Amino acid sequence: MTTVSRGRRPGSPDTRAAILDAARALFAAGGLTGTSVRAVAARAGVDPALVHHYFGTKDDLFVAALALRVDPREVLAPVVAEGPDGAGERLLRVFLSVWDDPELQLPLRALARSLTDPAGKELMRDGFLTVVIGPVGAALGIDEPERRMPLVASQVLGLILMRYLLEAEPISTMPAEEVVAVYAPTIQRYLTGPLPPRANAR
Amino acid sequence: MTTVSRGRRPGSPDTRAAILDAARALFAAGGLTGTSVRAVAARAGVDPALVHHYFGTKDDLFVAALALRVDPREVLAPVVAEGPDGAGERLLRVFLSVWDDPELQLPLRALARSLTDPAGKELMRDGFLTVVIGPVGAALGIDEPERRMPLVASQVLGLILMRYLLEAEPISTMPAEEVVAVYAPTIQRYLTGPLPPRANAR
Repeated sequence: MTTVSRGRRPGSPDTRAAILDAARALFAAGGLTGTSVRAVAARAGVDPALVHHYFGTKDDLFVAALALRVDPREVLAPVVAEGPDGAGERLLRVFLSVWDDPELQLPLRALARSLTDPAGKELMRDGFLTVVIGPVGAALGIDEPERRMPLVASQVLGLILMRYLLEAEPISTMPAEEVVAVYAPTIQRYLTGPLPPRANAR
Repeated sequence: MTTVSRGRRPGSPDTRAAILDAARALFAAGGLTGTSVRAVAARAGVDPALVHHYFGTKDDLFVAALALRVDPREVLAPVVAEGPDGAGERLLRVFLSVWDDPELQLPLRALARSLTDPAGKELMRDGFLTVVIGPVGAALGIDEPERRMPLVASQVLGLILMRYLLEAEPISTMPAEEVVAVYAPTIQRYLTGPLPPRANAR
């Protein structure tokens, strides 16, 4: 439909980087649903066809924009290595070292905004919970990891919402050490504390 | 721009109800950003102009669709009336009686999906936190309510995400009594337990 302007070098790494930067900024603000390829192209100063040419569909672009240059499984290795004692506190420290890093904030916010998109459900359930959170529970050797790790996720996700997306005071400006002190007992209880007997599913 | 078909009675309560039903279903699935007035009109079988005529802007329609027929402050009165002891457990029971109610689920899910919309930030911070959650803390007479209630909100929001939006097992199918038993100690600690000293904001 449209042609790429000859004034640009479409293959240059700068162009790809400009598209990715634009995509990260817009996905972080509007999530997957609220962002169009056209808007990304406009912000990057390129033709929408070029965005499709290099990155495929909007979903593909989203995945490319999320490439975090950190492997969550690698980052979480120290949490697991020392066993269940104190794992709640270590998990929070690792979590904050990643999420409070200004360089990682934009793609992480984009990811978090997509949580409530219909498309984000699979990303979250099959990606985050299955690939990242599940193996941590298994590696820690705790009992009932398939029940405990979703509880951990429920508090971590609520913290992400309040601190990074809603930016609700005072959680949004709490120093990392205070966040650790406030939430570590909760996470530790979910990991290793007593839980009520399992009832039959509703 | 468009004219209303003469074949319909635009003022009929049925038409208004049909528009609201369509809006609730679509907002629940796609949130505020992912839903258009055009799509709501199509689902209700009316002209988009009629939607605007009766409900104003898309934001106005969203607010109308969210009218829950429950006043959260009224529902929360029993939580407050008996004071801080056991308030965590009572709060969870009230929360589940509302959120597990099939009649209320669609508008509540729509509200929750809008959490991560840019427009949802004010709705959440200035609405939910200020109007609903804040007064509960004040009425309970706990110390530091402005610090403790956002912690409560961070766990309740994470629970909402896991149970109702991501529908992540086993939280999504846990009987209400098990949810209460799992989360009450967390909520109670945030309400009345020891907290670390406040550090200077980052």
